Amino acid sequence: MPGAQKVSENLSAQIIHDEPFFRAVADEIEIFAAAYAGRLPVMLKGPTGCGKTRFVEHMAWRLKRPLVTVAAHEDLAAADLAGRFLLAPEGTVWHDGPLTAAVRMGAICYLDEIVEARQDTTVVIHPLTDARRSLPLDKKGELVEAHPDFQLTISYNPGYQSAVKDLKESTKQRFVAIEFSYPEPSIEAEIVMREAGVEAPIASGLVDVALRSRNLRGQGLAEGASTRMLIHAAKLLRGGAPLSAALRSAILLPITDEPDLREALGAAIAASLPNGLSLQ
Amino acid sequence: MPGAQKVSENLSAQIIHDEPFFRAVADEIEIFAAAYAGRLPVMLKGPTGCGKTRFVEHMAWRLKRPLVTVAAHEDLAAADLAGRFLLAPEGTVWHDGPLTAAVRMGAICYLDEIVEARQDTTVVIHPLTDARRSLPLDKKGELVEAHPDFQLTISYNPGYQSAVKDLKESTKQRFVAIEFSYPEPSIEAEIVMREAGVEAPIASGLVDVALRSRNLRGQGLAEGASTRMLIHAAKLLRGGAPLSAALRSAILLPITDEPDLREALGAAIAASLPNGLSLQ
Amino acid sequence: MPGAQKVSENLSAQIIHDEPFFRAVADEIEIFAAAYAGRLPVMLKGPTGCGKTRFVEHMAWRLKRPLVTVAAHEDLAAADLAGRFLLAPEGTVWHDGPLTAAVRMGAICYLDEIVEARQDTTVVIHPLTDARRSLPLDKKGELVEAHPDFQLTISYNPGYQSAVKDLKESTKQRFVAIEFSYPEPSIEAEIVMREAGVEAPIASGLVDVALRSRNLRGQGLAEGASTRMLIHAAKLLRGGAPLSAALRSAILLPITDEPDLREALGAAIAASLPNGLSLQ
Amino acid sequence: MPGAQKVSENLSAQIIHDEPFFRAVADEIEIFAAAYAGRLPVMLKGPTGCGKTRFVEHMAWRLKRPLVTVAAHEDLAAADLAGRFLLAPEGTVWHDGPLTAAVRMGAICYLDEIVEARQDTTVVIHPLTDARRSLPLDKKGELVEAHPDFQLTISYNPGYQSAVKDLKESTKQRFVAIEFSYPEPSIEAEIVMREAGVEAPIASGLVDVALRSRNLRGQGLAEGASTRMLIHAAKLLRGGAPLSAALRSAILLPITDEPDLREALGAAIAASLPNGLSLQ
Amino acid sequence: MPGAQKVSENLSAQIIHDEPFFRAVADEIEIFAAAYAGRLPVMLKGPTGCGKTRFVEHMAWRLKRPLVTVAAHEDLAAADLAGRFLLAPEGTVWHDGPLTAAVRMGAICYLDEIVEARQDTTVVIHPLTDARRSLPLDKKGELVEAHPDFQLTISYNPGYQSAVKDLKESTKQRFVAIEFSYPEPSIEAEIVMREAGVEAPIASGLVDVALRSRNLRGQGLAEGASTRMLIHAAKLLRGGAPLSAALRSAILLPITDEPDLREALGAAIAASLPNGLSLQ
Amino acid sequence: MPGAQKVSENLSAQIIHDEPFFRAVADEIEIFAAAYAGRLPVMLKGPTGCGKTRFVEHMAWRLKRPLVTVAAHEDLAAADLAGRFLLAPEGTVWHDGPLTAAVRMGAICYLDEIVEARQDTTVVIHPLTDARRSLPLDKKGELVEAHPDFQLTISYNPGYQSAVKDLKESTKQRFVAIEFSYPEPSIEAEIVMREAGVEAPIASGLVDVALRSRNLRGQGLAEGASTRMLIHAAKLLRGGAPLSAALRSAILLPITDEPDLREALGAAIAASLPNGLSLQ
Repeated sequence: MPGAQKVSENLSAQIIHDEPFFRAVADEIEIFAAAYAGRLPVMLKGPTGCGKTRFVEHMAWRLKRPLVTVAAHEDLAAADLAGRFLLAPEGTVWHDGPLTAAVRMGAICYLDEIVEARQDTTVVIHPLTDARRSLPLDKKGELVEAHPDFQLTISYNPGYQSAVKDLKESTKQRFVAIEFSYPEPSIEAEIVMREAGVEAPIASGLVDVALRSRNLRGQGLAEGASTRMLIHAAKLLRGGAPLSAALRSAILLPITDEPDLREALGAAIAASLPNGLSLQ
Repeated sequence: MPGAQKVSENLSAQIIHDEPFFRAVADEIEIFAAAYAGRLPVMLKGPTGCGKTRFVEHMAWRLKRPLVTVAAHEDLAAADLAGRFLLAPEGTVWHDGPLTAAVRMGAICYLDEIVEARQDTTVVIHPLTDARRSLPLDKKGELVEAHPDFQLTISYNPGYQSAVKDLKESTKQRFVAIEFSYPEPSIEAEIVMREAGVEAPIASGLVDVALRSRNLRGQGLAEGASTRMLIHAAKLLRGGAPLSAALRSAILLPITDEPDLREALGAAIAASLPNGLSLQ
Repeated sequence: MPGAQKVSENLSAQIIHDEPFFRAVADEIEIFAAAYAGRLPVMLKGPTGCGKTRFVEHMAWRLKRPLVTVAAHEDLAAADLAGRFLLAPEGTVWHDGPLTAAVRMGAICYLDEIVEARQDTTVVIHPLTDARRSLPLDKKGELVEAHPDFQLTISYNPGYQSAVKDLKESTKQRFVAIEFSYPEPSIEAEIVMREAGVEAPIASGLVDVALRSRNLRGQGLAEGASTRMLIHAAKLLRGGAPLSAALRSAILLPITDEPDLREALGAAIAASLPNGLSLQ
Repeated sequence: MPGAQKVSENLSAQIIHDEPFFRAVADEIEIFAAAYAGRLPVMLKGPTGCGKTRFVEHMAWRLKRPLVTVAAHEDLAAADLAGRFLLAPEGTVWHDGPLTAAVRMGAICYLDEIVEARQDTTVVIHPLTDARRSLPLDKKGELVEAHPDFQLTISYNPGYQSAVKDLKESTKQRFVAIEFSYPEPSIEAEIVMREAGVEAPIASGLVDVALRSRNLRGQGLAEGASTRMLIHAAKLLRGGAPLSAALRSAILLPITDEPDLREALGAAIAASLPNGLSLQ
Repeated sequence: MPGAQKVSENLSAQIIHDEPFFRAVADEIEIFAAAYAGRLPVMLKGPTGCGKTRFVEHMAWRLKRPLVTVAAHEDLAAADLAGRFLLAPEGTVWHDGPLTAAVRMGAICYLDEIVEARQDTTVVIHPLTDARRSLPLDKKGELVEAHPDFQLTISYNPGYQSAVKDLKESTKQRFVAIEFSYPEPSIEAEIVMREAGVEAPIASGLVDVALRSRNLRGQGLAEGASTRMLIHAAKLLRGGAPLSAALRSAILLPITDEPDLREALGAAIAASLPNGLSLQ
Repeated sequence: MPGAQKVSENLSAQIIHDEPFFRAVADEIEIFAAAYAGRLPVMLKGPTGCGKTRFVEHMAWRLKRPLVTVAAHEDLAAADLAGRFLLAPEGTVWHDGPLTAAVRMGAICYLDEIVEARQDTTVVIHPLTDARRSLPLDKKGELVEAHPDFQLTISYNPGYQSAVKDLKESTKQRFVAIEFSYPEPSIEAEIVMREAGVEAPIASGLVDVALRSRNLRGQGLAEGASTRMLIHAAKLLRGGAPLSAALRSAILLPITDEPDLREALGAAIAASLPNGLSLQ
């Protein structure tokens, strides 16, 4: 990623020097800035591969704040965020986790897909999201008050949550929410050109493929082709793959293994090809 | 939070010097004071974001007691409250947990959403809630008798508990209960003005939005807009966000992802806007 | 608790010097004494808050034995009772758990709500409950023979056990059982007067409330007001709370959150109030 | 237990010097002796409290072998039987578990209710039950060949096992089985006299009570009164308890909490009382 | 076991000097030898107690290879096979597990009932079963290439596997399979004579009993009497037990606890007795 | 495996000097090369035993990159890939896991059957699959940026995944996919000749058997005979096993234990034998 550097050898925070490319779709930049002005925690909602991670990188650059990113998963425990005691020659020594580090230095802490984490992880952020703005390190017996510039951002994909795994109401209500979707065709083509280094006609053709695939949502497909998949296809083309093979490997095969859906999606994609190529 | 300071570098207790802002709705302050006079443990019941945490801070200030707060979660074990042995150069050394610290110093210990914790956590507080007023540290082989000023307070949201996760009868009966709900409109507007720094007409308008959303409870919504959400919207307005965007980000999007409910809630909120703005 | 002192700084056993107040309901004192004469293990059955813990304290005082109390919970493991190796500068060192300590010193060991514990915990007590009267410390490779004065007592609330969590037949049969229920009204009023320091008319009125609430058992209520709840209400009155608020906080709110039951219970309680006060 | 002594301070094996009282019901002593002659592993089947543990003690005395007893439970792991490395000043040091100790010294190892243990525990005994007669200590990298006098005995109560928790066929087939039931009335009365120190008429009356209770098996009762319960009742009588209280505490209350069953059982017991006493 | 010796004090491998008695039923010896010539992994299928373990011992003797046997169970983890770091005075030190030891020395490694193990255990053997013939020790960062003489053998009883616990297709396909069943009557009698030291008529009579019991398979019995059970019965006879008691303890009681099945099986066995003896 | 060597004593990476034999079926080599040119992560889809592992080895040789292979299983945790702290005399010391080692050195990291792993494992690779190309080591507090030559490849068998165990959409979309199936008969025969060292007629006959077995897919068989099974059969033939025994042990017995399916498969295989041999 251009402009990203580590703060120190021993820290997973990024300081982003160069503007990460981001094309706004609506008022997402203004809302985030207003939330940051009031130090309100933010929740980003939206489908996979639509640019949420890039947006946070862009806002960190724009607000001149370090960025600490943690990808949540079902074994992520509170101690993975807050820190833990490790054994050293002189006895046990405390090591700050990435959240504690962000709280102390005044970074933006981005917890990606927080709903995947264990519940103790979601509860540990509660005191950081209200007037207290503090992080209790119970095991260390310390109450860390947040740096004035600290900000907490999480992502949340409503379509993925099941009844057994969802954020608690008492957690959701603590966040201001911003909703994301795929960009306008012309903007999306511009993004593909920029990210994969291909010409405008190729990018436009790929966006056309994406729109056709997204029309199949609700007919069995969970999601259509994402902007990320278009960039993959464009890069395969640049690497020398023929068009049909690039679309098959980057879009058709990753989206579904169900034979009927794959046939329908293949037909939809093939209809947009200039010369009647088949993907099968 | 104004007036909160750590007792020492190594302690998660707060001493609250300045009066935390709290507007009483009913006789909650008197009941808590009477319970404290008899050193009875207290259970606070009520919905998310209605001010339970602030109430405990207020009472700690009023009773001139340090406050130790622990947010419970499903991995919170008894040892996280009581303490544990840690490895040091001279062998294993005992470290008091936050509950033990509060018991020794005579603090108010506030266990937030205790029902989320593991059962050993709820059982460890039993001897502190009856005539014994003691905390056995089985692993250390010590019976800590509570400081005369120690008081135990827990919160409990009845609407959230499922059949598999509820407080045992033998635990519930050990507490005196105080019930909370949202304040009267005029009081709630005063709170929003005070917390977000906005003018009275804006605060009143936001409370009006909240009342409309709360009317939808029972029609599919688990809860309406909380006082906390109103403060969020007011802060977004102060940060420069337009009214419709502030309401959408602070209230509409966090409350529900269900399309029908979102439409109904959006219509209810829009009906209260001065100029027919839409939230979508 | 009057008369309770720790045996030593490092021991969770109590030696009870002053007679703990206990009013016998039936022949429970005689049966316990006969069981102790034969060194038979005892199981106390009965509802929450009816005085089982106090009874064991009374018997320990009467029999002049130290008392070791352990509140069981679902994470209580055999090692929590028997003991474990801890790391010290000279290597691992064995530390007796509370049960082992009681076995060696000849104390009464009271395991409260044993059914909550993990199964290894219930099995570890088997050799203490038959002719062997010994406790094998497998991890230490020691067979501890019980002090001649050692006695084991457990509590068990049949109404709470589910099919998945019950004592094994082979455990139940090892104990002599004593059944507890709430005391006669006059005795219960005497207990309330004594424990909360209120006058006879107030105590009698509260017992009257309790009787009305207990009549609702079987109509949806798991239990009525316990003796402990009456003491709580009396203490709130002494602390300055008005009567209706004391009854609401000490009895009505802790017992149930179900609206219909709460209304029925509130009406039953209000009917016993001198001046038609409402609890809502 | 008469005649039982520890082999050493650091060993949970018993050497039984005096003959433990045991009255054979059928050919159990001969079968066990024949199995021991062929060094075949033995499984004891039968209800709770009928004397299986005492039988093993008797056979250990008769065969002049030390006895190592382990009560299995659902957290009993292979390492609890085989042994484990413990941390000592000179590094990790291996400590034999009770099974390994029995294998080396040629003791009888009695695993009580083995089906309760974790599966790794049942598998670890396989090589001890066939021609190999060896115990692999995988973690230590040692293959311990059994002492020629070593014998393995387990107990198993078929009535208690559920579908999810039963011995594997490949485990059951490795054992020779002996079935136990309650002794003949005259023998059972003799046992009660001997164990509790009461006169013959009292013992006979108690056995009469037991027979009546066992007739209720299959009408809702899992089991009737065991020999152990009769001994308890006799000891309570010796300790000064009246007859009806002794029967209630030792038999009626421990067997069932179901009101209908308790009433039927109480009536059956009362019918055998000399003077129409009630147990309620 | 005749001829079995440990390679060293600290190793669980056997070198088998004397031929273990084994009577081949079909071409199992030739197939195993051909598989070993191609270093193909082998899976032994067949019921309990039919001689699979003895066959592997025989082949290890025949091929002059050391034998390492591991009995799998549901808590067997990859580290139990591969090895782990242990704490020593000079820090953590790696200890090879039994599989790694076998891989290095060129032994036959026999994993008994592998399907019982945790999945990581089955995956860890994959690279040993294809052209790679290597064992990655991820935690140690070492790739151990197998000794040219190393061979992997597993056992698998298809009748026992449930839907939730079965070998993955991608594991099964990696093995060449050999199927086992009980031997012909004359061979089985010879085995019983040899293993238990009884005369031919007794052995033949016991085999006759086994055949009758195996005819009941499919009528409720999971399996009939195994060869092992016949050897048990013969040994009890040698130890002095009467015929009916020997058959009851060695065959009838271990096979089933279901009353109807036990009666049917008892009748089938009794029909083969010379003098109309009953087993009940 | 020809040409495979360890990079160092302490590293599980292979440098492949000699070309691993691989016969391409379609454009898989070109697509992988194009993906590698754009440093896109690759997912290999296809049935067991069709040559996915060999393909990755071939591409590593072709692209002159070291290869790190990890076989995933349900207990594989993120720390097994990323690394962990180990205790050494000077305190805890960090050890890179195989993924971190591959990221630093610029190897191809092949995660076989990634869907089997714990979810934290799949999430830890996310930042390596987008523009970030970095691996955060949260416990060490280090953000490792990938070597420019690093490439990530995973395998995924769609037919095996259940509803509860499948890759998340947000993971699948991050990979370019290549689909594998069994090769053309002439190519498959060439592979068998080459791998097992048998003559052409034998290899062709075995491929004929495989084709017949694969025709039974969908009639109850999950899969037909794989190329690996043909190589097994050919090796058994070379080791001296007769044809029918080789086919039975290498193909018939491993594929199914269901009697009807086994009979149908046996008949299909027997039909292709030159002389009407039976497999039973």
